[in-house]
Amino acid sequence: MPVIGVIGGGQLARMMIGPAVELGIDLRVFAETVESSARDRATAVGDFRDVDAVLAFARGVDIITFDHEHVPSDVLEALLAAGVAVRPGPSALAAAQDKLHMREVLADLGLPLPVWARADSADDVTRFLAENGGRVVAKTPRGGYDGKGVVVITDASQITEWLAAGPVLLEELVDYARELAQLVARRPSGDIATWPVVQTIQSGGVCAEVILPAPKASQRLMDAAADIGRTIADGLGVTGVLAVELFETTDERILVNELAMRPHNSGHVTIEGSVTGQFEQHLRAIADMPLGSTESRQPWAAMVNVFGAMDTDRYGHLNDQSGVKIHNYGKEPRAGRKVGHVTTVGTELDDVVYRARAAATIFAPAN
Amino acid sequence: MPVIGVIGGGQLARMMIGPAVELGIDLRVFAETVESSARDRATAVGDFRDVDAVLAFARGVDIITFDHEHVPSDVLEALLAAGVAVRPGPSALAAAQDKLHMREVLADLGLPLPVWARADSADDVTRFLAENGGRVVAKTPRGGYDGKGVVVITDASQITEWLAAGPVLLEELVDYARELAQLVARRPSGDIATWPVVQTIQSGGVCAEVILPAPKASQRLMDAAADIGRTIADGLGVTGVLAVELFETTDERILVNELAMRPHNSGHVTIEGSVTGQFEQHLRAIADMPLGSTESRQPWAAMVNVFGAMDTDRYGHLNDQSGVKIHNYGKEPRAGRKVGHVTTVGTELDDVVYRARAAATIFAPAN
Repeated sequence: MPVIGVIGGGQLARMMIGPAVELGIDLRVFAETVESSARDRATAVGDFRDVDAVLAFARGVDIITFDHEHVPSDVLEALLAAGVAVRPGPSALAAAQDKLHMREVLADLGLPLPVWARADSADDVTRFLAENGGRVVAKTPRGGYDGKGVVVITDASQITEWLAAGPVLLEELVDYARELAQLVARRPSGDIATWPVVQTIQSGGVCAEVILPAPKASQRLMDAAADIGRTIADGLGVTGVLAVELFETTDERILVNELAMRPHNSGHVTIEGSVTGQFEQHLRAIADMPLGSTESRQPWAAMVNVFGAMDTDRYGHLNDQSGVKIHNYGKEPRAGRKVGHVTTVGTELDDVVYRARAAATIFAPAN
Repeated sequence: MPVIGVIGGGQLARMMIGPAVELGIDLRVFAETVESSARDRATAVGDFRDVDAVLAFARGVDIITFDHEHVPSDVLEALLAAGVAVRPGPSALAAAQDKLHMREVLADLGLPLPVWARADSADDVTRFLAENGGRVVAKTPRGGYDGKGVVVITDASQITEWLAAGPVLLEELVDYARELAQLVARRPSGDIATWPVVQTIQSGGVCAEVILPAPKASQRLMDAAADIGRTIADGLGVTGVLAVELFETTDERILVNELAMRPHNSGHVTIEGSVTGQFEQHLRAIADMPLGSTESRQPWAAMVNVFGAMDTDRYGHLNDQSGVKIHNYGKEPRAGRKVGHVTTVGTELDDVVYRARAAATIFAPAN
């Protein structure tokens, strides 16, 4: 029975617990605090940048994986040196940790990208603005998350502080029709499984809803998205689940937006929507088990995030919603915090989406 | 967030872990040993007949439930006296703990039963044998499990030891066409949900396979089984999941065989086969949450038990079986021991059953 250690105790680690139990995998979590979402399986609490603490956690662990991409490379290298399998590996993680590096790697793979450039100075920014309509996106290469570290600018002066700290990634402001995400899993032996591409609906830079599969997606679009997913998974030698965030442009092209080298919010919908959910698949992939089927269980599935608080006292309001699946991350309430999600599946798109929204609304504050 | 304590650390407690995590329920287990199947959530290890040990475990727990029906009534009463909710309650459990009492209670509810009698002496046995074809079933009222404590007899001398220990339940040898099981959930407020009746296939007195729904079941049969389930759940005031084992006779009647006052092997198939699996439903029911939908996700689902050993090294043989769902109970191998199960779902009955059997076979010893 493999022992898998997860660095990070957020909801991604938490949602691995159920599948790990059923697969007979001993799952252990290196959590940030005793209150972390995945606290039930925490065998260590500490700072993931502390090499000694992580090495101590990894003793007796066969495979290390991640709840987030922020583990520094010296910690990853120390784990490898100690003989622990690290999945995904450091080079794949590096592409997710640094957005400039990500753009370089994706460009090398020949993938369709927004126009982008590295800016080291205000002059670089001014030039890129002039070439791209005077309004572009600036991103800090590291540390961005859920809309943080991303800003739309019209002048270099808006990112003076970022430039002082290091290079900045600039991207054209893509005229996109909608956002999609392609989930992929790859095991060390090379086998790859792709789920049907999903549509993601953001609100304030944060994922709010996901629909599986993306409505009105042509076979050509589905194939193109899956191909992009496979190319990245193979090209970077990813092990585990990878999420590729995509733009679909108004002229029906798809461009790669960002990567997440782990299970991702856009894949929560697969827990009930697919024969194999992303958390089970991630465990299968990193344990080098045969990958599970990614077929959909029903024609449509919709996931809606719950923000702020997900009070169990409000479950009673789900009386007329017996098909809604609840996922409560066990987090302390805080305004705007992702604290859970709900999922519905069914044969009618509108019905599935509206039922999920109605269920999520139950947890929203009344005033 | 309710805190639920499970007495008993077997696979039933283990399979509550995943749903508890997703519902945001703090699940704690009172396990028999540190090696128990549900050891991951064990907060106490001890003897469930030890009142003080169980009371110590229950401190801080809102609701106590069970992995088995063997907890003595003095322990249950002590829990109630300490202000802990016990679900199902002592009177419902009593009907599952003592098969003679069960027969009395079911007879009082007017349910269709095999011909039965209480035998206190060899004369009672001889008389019952004479009245029922000379071949009957004898059962010890307590402690029977998976075929233990059950024997077919043709002479009173075969159960002399049992009679010396106390009364014995005698039942006609039912000429049944097949065995069925009706799963039901009831919450304290009285709401009841029934799943479609399943067919169970036994081997050596132990459940080997389950098919959801029971093939070739007429609407009349489905309704009759669901009615029996509802009558028992209401009549005994059950809270949580209840399994009613049924005989379907060659002349298309159904008779109540036995009760399990908890999630049951016949209900494992609902994890993937139904929108709401029995373990999630049990937690919803005892937490007095709205019950989840018991609709099937696909026309057919089949579960096949794995006995002896479920070595994770053999998962690789599932390469061509990407739709099979694995449930590994994390138990030490032992000949004949239930150590896991596999489930398949789909649109064609034969395909679903054969795929599940093929997957289970992967774990069987090669010689």
